[in-house]
Amino acid sequence: MLAVDWGTTQLRGALLDADGRMIDGHAAPRGLLQLPTDGWAAAFDAEFGAWLGRWPDLPSLMCGMVGSRQGWAEAPYLHCPAGVHELAAGLCWIRPGRLAVVPGLAAQTGGEAGEVPDVMRGEETQVVGALALLGLADATLVLPGTHSKWVQVTDGRITAFQTHMSGECYALFRQHSILARSLPPPDGPATEDGGSVDDAFDRGVARAAEAGGLLHHLFGVRTLQLFDRLGARELAGYLSGLVIGEELRAVAPDPRRALVIVGSDGLAQRYRRALLARGVTARCIGDEAGWRGLFELWRRAVPP
Amino acid sequence: MLAVDWGTTQLRGALLDADGRMIDGHAAPRGLLQLPTDGWAAAFDAEFGAWLGRWPDLPSLMCGMVGSRQGWAEAPYLHCPAGVHELAAGLCWIRPGRLAVVPGLAAQTGGEAGEVPDVMRGEETQVVGALALLGLADATLVLPGTHSKWVQVTDGRITAFQTHMSGECYALFRQHSILARSLPPPDGPATEDGGSVDDAFDRGVARAAEAGGLLHHLFGVRTLQLFDRLGARELAGYLSGLVIGEELRAVAPDPRRALVIVGSDGLAQRYRRALLARGVTARCIGDEAGWRGLFELWRRAVPP
Repeated sequence: MLAVDWGTTQLRGALLDADGRMIDGHAAPRGLLQLPTDGWAAAFDAEFGAWLGRWPDLPSLMCGMVGSRQGWAEAPYLHCPAGVHELAAGLCWIRPGRLAVVPGLAAQTGGEAGEVPDVMRGEETQVVGALALLGLADATLVLPGTHSKWVQVTDGRITAFQTHMSGECYALFRQHSILARSLPPPDGPATEDGGSVDDAFDRGVARAAEAGGLLHHLFGVRTLQLFDRLGARELAGYLSGLVIGEELRAVAPDPRRALVIVGSDGLAQRYRRALLARGVTARCIGDEAGWRGLFELWRRAVPP
Repeated sequence: MLAVDWGTTQLRGALLDADGRMIDGHAAPRGLLQLPTDGWAAAFDAEFGAWLGRWPDLPSLMCGMVGSRQGWAEAPYLHCPAGVHELAAGLCWIRPGRLAVVPGLAAQTGGEAGEVPDVMRGEETQVVGALALLGLADATLVLPGTHSKWVQVTDGRITAFQTHMSGECYALFRQHSILARSLPPPDGPATEDGGSVDDAFDRGVARAAEAGGLLHHLFGVRTLQLFDRLGARELAGYLSGLVIGEELRAVAPDPRRALVIVGSDGLAQRYRRALLARGVTARCIGDEAGWRGLFELWRRAVPP
């Protein structure tokens, strides 16, 4: 089968064998933001034409923004709780039996201040895959990123989740706030400047747990520079610690539940480090979670 | 006397009579960001030349970024606790007996995660003036703005304070985040769009007090738009409520202490509204606080 993760800025595909193993992969910078509204089918054929030419009956399953209102075909959100069976039953078929899109999930949060919806598209598939790969049915999963997702799974179904705009906010503070003047250029060389970036990150995580709140703690990046307490690269680590630490403060993950970080890059390692500092052990699982999720959903798919 | 508030982007001056009443005022967009490093004296003479020509012995006291390292003359930070007497004794004289700068204040915050300094320049003078005008010696004062200050005063002296980057963060989220796409242009016409902006603001303030944290609540601006729950102008009010509400959540002002908002504009009114929703009554005092603070400090000044 052809497994496709088609998001806001990236198109990624993988050719999977009958056991779900990846045979080949292909990626292109052709996401929702780069494509014309009616350009999805043509981009699909262009990017995967070689494989589709070789195996004309290759079935394809896609997840991500490809199923949004601005995508190829809108796959309406399913509501929590939902697991692999609900998702497989809710596929949105573009070419019956041949090509489908995984629906996103919606959850309701909010209390007396009124209900506030939350949504995901693509992460539900990664969760399905991570659970299958790890053999878990009850866990908390965190998917770090521009918009981090915290997902609660009970009896194999996603019961609730929360989005945190941590990655986006970090980039805003890092590049567009007054703090940017105290920090090295984001794409500058990774040279040491006399202090330990990891130590500064840990200090930011610890600071985030103290009274004061993020809006106050942020100003500390400026004053620590003003009084020469931290070097420029350390300050960037401290800021990262403040933001990830604020996310952990708010989520307060239960150390008695299995915790899985879906990701294997430097960001995932930072989450793991910050969680450890709070006494929570987490395991990481990488990109294979998404492919496995598409494989698991396709196996259970019921064409219309 | 000539009272001058010289900040990052603005120069404002007031001619005060022997009782501290304002006779005349003058403002120009010539702050730290607009001036060359050595341009302060020339700008002072150019902007206030008419008054200085008429009263050659006019004494002048200045506060704000004019006393920073990048200012006209660096007035080193005094450490808390400090009140009107410490500030008056700590003036930095540029022309002895004639022209001086009020020092800024520094405070230490932070616990086990290590000390983090906090600083202010200009707000200490507004606090001195507000206390004098209101006859208070024990109060909490909030000075809303790009970087809001929360100031604790006991026995007439500033014992502690905290900066919150609320105004700056609101502008970042409003203009540079993904949320900007859901919101009307910041400088667009103030037309109604079918809902109440005040109600949406209140809802944001209430939401900020709930579990989840700012990084999560921000994403609600996007989903409330996605599900057509709030109009574009309401969403801007909701976002403002989230940010101010987060500041209040973190500060948790003591309702038994006198609370003073230094400011009289729409922003000050929003703080007042948000505080009321949390059961805290506050009074507002406007621009006169700064002039009165400079007057009170000059009265106690001891030239070198």
